[in-house]
Amino acid sequence: MRTVTYGGACSLDGFIAAADGALDWLHFSRDVQQLIAEYWATIDTVLMGRKTWEVAAAQGGGGGGGGGGASAITTYVFSRTLREVPAGARLVASDAGDFVRQLKRQPGKGICVMGGGELACSLLEAGVIDEVGLNVHPVLLGSGVPLFRDAGRRIALELTESRVIDGGCVYSMYRVLHADPAPRRRTRGARARNKA
Amino acid sequence: MRTVTYGGACSLDGFIAAADGALDWLHFSRDVQQLIAEYWATIDTVLMGRKTWEVAAAQGGGGGGGGGGASAITTYVFSRTLREVPAGARLVASDAGDFVRQLKRQPGKGICVMGGGELACSLLEAGVIDEVGLNVHPVLLGSGVPLFRDAGRRIALELTESRVIDGGCVYSMYRVLHADPAPRRRTRGARARNKA
Repeated sequence: MRTVTYGGACSLDGFIAAADGALDWLHFSRDVQQLIAEYWATIDTVLMGRKTWEVAAAQGGGGGGGGGGASAITTYVFSRTLREVPAGARLVASDAGDFVRQLKRQPGKGICVMGGGELACSLLEAGVIDEVGLNVHPVLLGSGVPLFRDAGRRIALELTESRVIDGGCVYSMYRVLHADPAPRRRTRGARARNKA
Repeated sequence: MRTVTYGGACSLDGFIAAADGALDWLHFSRDVQQLIAEYWATIDTVLMGRKTWEVAAAQGGGGGGGGGGASAITTYVFSRTLREVPAGARLVASDAGDFVRQLKRQPGKGICVMGGGELACSLLEAGVIDEVGLNVHPVLLGSGVPLFRDAGRRIALELTESRVIDGGCVYSMYRVLHADPAPRRRTRGARARNKA
């Protein structure tokens, strides 16, 4: 079964970008470059929601690029409003959880969930994300794009690694424990999030 | 100058209590007990807002207790609506930032900011908190009482310590860098928060 990983660099208060989109607080150190290169070698598939896709496409990275070898990466964009995406990506309008559950059964390398947490929240809720990784930066942004949203239930994790990397960043990896003994009631914030 | 510290145990998504107040996910390990005992020996003053005070008082801990030696701890409760607090605590209705700035100039030991982030947010905004400490638990709660709120500006930190403790928790301490070179515009979320 292929491993699905979600995460990224965030502030200590859990934002992946400031409210105005600013990323100038990110510390793109040699440690980070090495972590990304090592991780990128383990995956062949990237999943993103519409908003992340639009940001990536605007930056010229929408075609599944990053880390070199773009042609080896398949990018899926999850959206129910987009009619098409340019060549180099595939559009998914069906249920995100079901789609990823099937994708995990197909042969292949790891699967990376990118972006601002809405798709990831749907996928956490659907129980198809296996790992969560954070690179916590030493800053409080106060507001912005959150890494995590309310998946409607408590999700137990197991810490598999934590270490300090360059710039006073704390890099931690977690395994998602799928058999949650005490699921929480579905709340108002937990409606389907992959409708965008 | 006395050191003012804010922090506590939180989930990976930054909540200090679940939406229903549940704390059953907290891992009160021997490591945590030792950290609390060591920290408690360095302080003689506790600051809390009205809501934290009410929770603490209901649990019988409102008089500045915890960690033993309650009589050695002075508790200040910040509120503009409370008319009085029982003996063992002191009520502060004036500006929280100004009050703490003066308190720091008086002789004494460290000062602990307790609670759910509203008072801490005012004090971070006022620039009087010196340290932030987290014990990040391996769980996503999805919703609840946030450790951090929007202080209306970016706050730079310096990591001073990070280590894994019992239960897969990541304990990290930060120093607040008070000379923030790029203050952010005051936003809608940053109105005075110590009005409760």
